Amino acid sequence: MSGVIVTNPPKAAAKDVDALAGYGVATVHEAMGRTGLLGTRLRPIQRGVRVAGTAVTVLSWPGDNLMIHAAVEQCGEGDILVVTTTSPSTDGMVGELFATALQRRGVRGLVIDAGVRDTAELREVGFPVWSAAVSAQGTVKATGGSVNVPVVIGGQMIRPGDVILADDDGVVVVPRERAGRAAGASEARENKEAAARAAFIGGQLGLDRYGLRETLARLGVTYKSHEEYETDGAGS
Amino acid sequence: MSGVIVTNPPKAAAKDVDALAGYGVATVHEAMGRTGLLGTRLRPIQRGVRVAGTAVTVLSWPGDNLMIHAAVEQCGEGDILVVTTTSPSTDGMVGELFATALQRRGVRGLVIDAGVRDTAELREVGFPVWSAAVSAQGTVKATGGSVNVPVVIGGQMIRPGDVILADDDGVVVVPRERAGRAAGASEARENKEAAARAAFIGGQLGLDRYGLRETLARLGVTYKSHEEYETDGAGS
Amino acid sequence: MSGVIVTNPPKAAAKDVDALAGYGVATVHEAMGRTGLLGTRLRPIQRGVRVAGTAVTVLSWPGDNLMIHAAVEQCGEGDILVVTTTSPSTDGMVGELFATALQRRGVRGLVIDAGVRDTAELREVGFPVWSAAVSAQGTVKATGGSVNVPVVIGGQMIRPGDVILADDDGVVVVPRERAGRAAGASEARENKEAAARAAFIGGQLGLDRYGLRETLARLGVTYKSHEEYETDGAGS
Amino acid sequence: MSGVIVTNPPKAAAKDVDALAGYGVATVHEAMGRTGLLGTRLRPIQRGVRVAGTAVTVLSWPGDNLMIHAAVEQCGEGDILVVTTTSPSTDGMVGELFATALQRRGVRGLVIDAGVRDTAELREVGFPVWSAAVSAQGTVKATGGSVNVPVVIGGQMIRPGDVILADDDGVVVVPRERAGRAAGASEARENKEAAARAAFIGGQLGLDRYGLRETLARLGVTYKSHEEYETDGAGS
Amino acid sequence: MSGVIVTNPPKAAAKDVDALAGYGVATVHEAMGRTGLLGTRLRPIQRGVRVAGTAVTVLSWPGDNLMIHAAVEQCGEGDILVVTTTSPSTDGMVGELFATALQRRGVRGLVIDAGVRDTAELREVGFPVWSAAVSAQGTVKATGGSVNVPVVIGGQMIRPGDVILADDDGVVVVPRERAGRAAGASEARENKEAAARAAFIGGQLGLDRYGLRETLARLGVTYKSHEEYETDGAGS
Amino acid sequence: MSGVIVTNPPKAAAKDVDALAGYGVATVHEAMGRTGLLGTRLRPIQRGVRVAGTAVTVLSWPGDNLMIHAAVEQCGEGDILVVTTTSPSTDGMVGELFATALQRRGVRGLVIDAGVRDTAELREVGFPVWSAAVSAQGTVKATGGSVNVPVVIGGQMIRPGDVILADDDGVVVVPRERAGRAAGASEARENKEAAARAAFIGGQLGLDRYGLRETLARLGVTYKSHEEYETDGAGS
Repeated sequence: MSGVIVTNPPKAAAKDVDALAGYGVATVHEAMGRTGLLGTRLRPIQRGVRVAGTAVTVLSWPGDNLMIHAAVEQCGEGDILVVTTTSPSTDGMVGELFATALQRRGVRGLVIDAGVRDTAELREVGFPVWSAAVSAQGTVKATGGSVNVPVVIGGQMIRPGDVILADDDGVVVVPRERAGRAAGASEARENKEAAARAAFIGGQLGLDRYGLRETLARLGVTYKSHEEYETDGAGS
Repeated sequence: MSGVIVTNPPKAAAKDVDALAGYGVATVHEAMGRTGLLGTRLRPIQRGVRVAGTAVTVLSWPGDNLMIHAAVEQCGEGDILVVTTTSPSTDGMVGELFATALQRRGVRGLVIDAGVRDTAELREVGFPVWSAAVSAQGTVKATGGSVNVPVVIGGQMIRPGDVILADDDGVVVVPRERAGRAAGASEARENKEAAARAAFIGGQLGLDRYGLRETLARLGVTYKSHEEYETDGAGS
Repeated sequence: MSGVIVTNPPKAAAKDVDALAGYGVATVHEAMGRTGLLGTRLRPIQRGVRVAGTAVTVLSWPGDNLMIHAAVEQCGEGDILVVTTTSPSTDGMVGELFATALQRRGVRGLVIDAGVRDTAELREVGFPVWSAAVSAQGTVKATGGSVNVPVVIGGQMIRPGDVILADDDGVVVVPRERAGRAAGASEARENKEAAARAAFIGGQLGLDRYGLRETLARLGVTYKSHEEYETDGAGS
Repeated sequence: MSGVIVTNPPKAAAKDVDALAGYGVATVHEAMGRTGLLGTRLRPIQRGVRVAGTAVTVLSWPGDNLMIHAAVEQCGEGDILVVTTTSPSTDGMVGELFATALQRRGVRGLVIDAGVRDTAELREVGFPVWSAAVSAQGTVKATGGSVNVPVVIGGQMIRPGDVILADDDGVVVVPRERAGRAAGASEARENKEAAARAAFIGGQLGLDRYGLRETLARLGVTYKSHEEYETDGAGS
Repeated sequence: MSGVIVTNPPKAAAKDVDALAGYGVATVHEAMGRTGLLGTRLRPIQRGVRVAGTAVTVLSWPGDNLMIHAAVEQCGEGDILVVTTTSPSTDGMVGELFATALQRRGVRGLVIDAGVRDTAELREVGFPVWSAAVSAQGTVKATGGSVNVPVVIGGQMIRPGDVILADDDGVVVVPRERAGRAAGASEARENKEAAARAAFIGGQLGLDRYGLRETLARLGVTYKSHEEYETDGAGS
Repeated sequence: MSGVIVTNPPKAAAKDVDALAGYGVATVHEAMGRTGLLGTRLRPIQRGVRVAGTAVTVLSWPGDNLMIHAAVEQCGEGDILVVTTTSPSTDGMVGELFATALQRRGVRGLVIDAGVRDTAELREVGFPVWSAAVSAQGTVKATGGSVNVPVVIGGQMIRPGDVILADDDGVVVVPRERAGRAAGASEARENKEAAARAAFIGGQLGLDRYGLRETLARLGVTYKSHEEYETDGAGS
């Protein structure tokens, strides 16, 4: 794996990224037809932070952060660094020094399917991270890899320039060509949810709002009093 | 699995639920003879919150929240919604909209052996949750299940109307018939612990307080100076 | 396993422990040649706390905290209690009562490859804990074990008197004979990192600072524009 | 937990147990409305063996096999020993000596949510085991527990006398009162599957046999040629 | 997710598939520059079987095998069915009936990032399977999905028509356009390995064959007698 | 981590190794006071094989097999290669070529806390392996490590020259100085087990043989008929 560093990939339009930053991860995932979610393995090291940015991707050898150094040079204003390894690793590939370098270049955060360290310092300087592990384990700079090639994290392919949106619920990727449409669909979804919220506050039930009584009936789900249920025998 | 929705199950007495709310999960678990704990898989999404309530139970198909909609109608003041799936799932079955509907009905919290989403919002509105995962993954409403039947979570059977007590340590279930006795036993346990605390602050050792020096001797545990230990050879 | 309680083991010098307390876990791990880290399984129950102390070690049977009672008597000012079990366990072996007894003796914290309980109370009284699990599951006092013998946690051997340093990133062990040298090396490492930080703030790249452009070239990593990459075919 | 040993619990009728032994675990699970399966954690240590018997249940302390000794006396012809622990354990609680004692009493196999050892010998003497782990780790006999009380494994409650059926696919429990009905339903299921098998061999598709083309249409699943799909854009 | 069933996707050339079937998974993975491996999660249910075929892909809802029925119709001679779910699942989505239908159409095997059942029967009829779990858990036919769209398993994207090669070591995917080149590279790799094997049998060391003594020297790895090592102190 | 290769470490006496080879892992583990077991993570890739040998240890960087090449030269007749990595890895570090080189030098097997590949070939040539994973993932030769230093696997420290014994139940390490005593204790244990086996075949119960009726009584475990138990209420 000699590797390649791809320069100047296309990126999602800044205005679409900014629009998407206005919605939660769950909303955008739903608005895109329930796609794009990077699973449950990546968790934030901080609380209450939401960021959106364009992906600069890194594929590294486990236990090796050489390619992250190469990636810093490819990062710019509004990017989010996205790192994975060729096989599973929890090593602390990124710490406070990288955060310093990345913040100077305008990078908005880090999504890494491996470990981070200096987490107290990262929270202090306000550099948001979603990672698969927290680990102080150090790494070497001995094996090649790639920057700005498509990578897979949590079952999702992420290409350079795709939009990454992350909050307390996790991380979602929006393909760069779909960023505008996704923002529009998210707004529609949010309006729909606002209406539902108002209805629920007013006492309406989801059963009625979504027509689910018919669904239950069609599926053969029945209502029984506790006494009937006990008499019939559970599950018989 | 056509499923059943059981209405008006018996519930633990409100005064017993309130009494149990005065004790921690560890205390009640110990007071009941070290039973009732729902394992370590369920973790709170917030810190420093303790709630007690009566269980409304839901058994859902993985990736499907239809039966949670059916369960909302069965929920009332003082209940805690308890959800599990027929096979393991981390999908985000419940979010802020459900919390809105549940809070309106007086539900005190959610215990779910699957995922939740909108966690930032749930913390903001003060709807406490203990879950097996945080995930924005959306669900469908296509397959039947049951409400208010006995369910198993973390090796414990939970029947509708049983008391659920949850805090930072996890979740414990108290069978509805035993709620009064469990509250009494918890008070006794807490008094015992207060006496031990005072003794430990005063400098007494557990070895003496609990007569454990005899236990150690009976089991053949011996004391050696570091020098003796090194000379004898470790473990020889 | 009849077990042994070793008294008065040698300890790292207090001034070296205090010196090490001034550095983060990641720094000390790196300064010792990337050794000593107790893996990723142990996590803090609190945030923003760093402690250093000398290990009092406990090897217990799973589900049994008898030997922790025996260990309390062996603990003194500046110690950190280090507990593991003969086979994997998540039971809540230590809670607020133990913390009370340990704090009275000047113990600075707990590192346990099993569970803890009363976590809300432990945070409240400021007794820091790094554990493999949070669990209210109670334990018995029926089977022997050992105190102040070498134990293994997270792939690292910990002997009594070794230095334990723990923060938000995890836990590292420094052999007692190496504590002074490790403190010196940590200071050197921190100075080196301060210089790198200043350089990165000033805009220098790691690629240049660490001479990594040569490494990339030697490894055959090449630069391509996005257009070249697309034309060549990914990975062909 | 002082514990209790329950003697002479009711058992499923022998003829129903024998009838159930004629069907696979998947068939019986389906025939009972997709219930009763003990999850995926328990795996057989041998291949190609299917057994059915009546449960003798054991609830043990982790790392302790005292109650298994107590259970042997309660076992008889046609039983299957079912063991779990009060908290998760992988210790090797049962080995060849227990198998010798159990086989002499006519016990047909072991289902254990913990570890077994002497697995080579167990395969040799033909004592079938489904376990959560293989481990040589030895255990003590120091803490009480219970025999023939209801236990929970893999999300299923198992009462003494219930039918346990196990094969290469895993383990299913059939409540003792439902054993006859379950056997009947299993036969019906098998007949239905035989018809489907014949149809599939004859070239019929499940889409047609089960009327699923309508389902696909109702759900909005559409057919596209590869060219259309590529032109439209994936997922747009 | 309304879903789409894509018909007649392009496929790798049959002669390249057959050529690849002559090599092991490890060889082809290495020959492609160490890419294409579907991780360690998927394990074979049989031993000593190697198959190669062209992928027919399925993306299903967890707990739902509707789309597998739809996929059968798209399968033909020389295909391998590749199934994954929109979120993690261990349910037994495929059993002996599906195998019957698939074998009739000339399908060579199944790769599934979920569960299978009837494993004894599948081994008996010689239908090879690589799965993430063995589970008898039944599924429904209620929610849509897609057939012959790109899917991700074990960090690898698999498109319909790509080559799937599987043996005791796991599963590797070869992009359909690269199948010919991969077969050629695999032959070269095998020749190289045959030469190494002969050299190793003749007593040559990898250290000499691959020039690794220089690497060790460059990296500062030193040789010490046991006595020197003990005197210097381990790791000091 | 520049690393060191230690030459000519002391080894356990060959006659003690051969004696230990006559006992199972469970027997030796018990005979040594229930110590030395390498946990449950390492599993054999074959069945029915037992080997004993002296350890040649390797500490490698994850994803890197350079040091295994260095270790081959240090291996000789009667050794077992023992490999671990500085952080967790499942990569296939060893395959059939290494086995060829190792077998030529008289090495009896491999114990590796990482992955192996070419498992079909390894079984065919009869080179026994206990590993944490099966994976075809290839590795590089870029980072230093150590040979014949103490390593930790599964919570046990293994020094070069210690005895490794492995069978279907797992792997146990016997410190080289204790090999003779361990063999003697194993023989005594086996005799004791033979007597117990004979007694159990003759119908004696463990309850009586080990005096456990007294233990049960002392612990307060009581006997109840099923009717009493039902009347009293479960667990009340």
